[in-house]
Amino acid sequence: MSDCIFCKIAAGEIPSATLYEDENFRVILDLGPATYGHALILPKQHYANLMEVSDELAGKSMILAKKVVTAMTGLLPCDGYNVVQNNGEAAGQTVFHYHVHLIPRYKNDHAGILWKPGKLTDEKRDEILEKVRGKIR
Amino acid sequence: MSDCIFCKIAAGEIPSATLYEDENFRVILDLGPATYGHALILPKQHYANLMEVSDELAGKSMILAKKVVTAMTGLLPCDGYNVVQNNGEAAGQTVFHYHVHLIPRYKNDHAGILWKPGKLTDEKRDEILEKVRGKIR
Repeated sequence: MSDCIFCKIAAGEIPSATLYEDENFRVILDLGPATYGHALILPKQHYANLMEVSDELAGKSMILAKKVVTAMTGLLPCDGYNVVQNNGEAAGQTVFHYHVHLIPRYKNDHAGILWKPGKLTDEKRDEILEKVRGKIR
Repeated sequence: MSDCIFCKIAAGEIPSATLYEDENFRVILDLGPATYGHALILPKQHYANLMEVSDELAGKSMILAKKVVTAMTGLLPCDGYNVVQNNGEAAGQTVFHYHVHLIPRYKNDHAGILWKPGKLTDEKRDEILEKVRGKIR
């Protein structure tokens, strides 16, 4: 997409702090990092989100996430990782080109990312099961 | 693992609100949901986290995430999704069996999950590039 900034970064038309590159992906440092080492996996092909990306690249993006965090372990002094993939403005997606956040976590870094657990009532459980079960193919 | 609750749930030994099941995975509703429809993808085989899971199941878990959120679109009145996979206590992982959170998002649901963007200084950028670049294989 000619007006997509992540297409341009992934293609190398806009410079970026690139950690890794292969034929399908570029992994860069996020310019607005949640923590030290916050990286982004960008496919070189344009897809708006997880619903649109091909199965092949969806799968490969998670295998690459594994590869990157495995390599980071020992290279960065972090204690864990959040892998976060946002879809839609309501979910905090700001660039509409499929991407995966790799966020190294440090004890007491107060980086957020968590949620307040609610309660799954029997009523809601049955309602959601009724709506969704049997419809995932 | 005989003492892992997600192994027991994935195997069907402990009942759960199951949305979907195949030979490799069970998808259940989270008992402490961030939002309405919050689901978990659990592999039936035990792996502690993303660094340990096989490439095959890592890839398949993201393809299944795509499948589930694609199906949910239209079935739930949500406006987006966060796909979140936590590794390590510092990252909020509470059950040490690899899993993927699928969190439907609704406009103004105030579910959190986001982070406060920091700034990638040139110094930090160069330091991280120096540490990590060329070491992801």
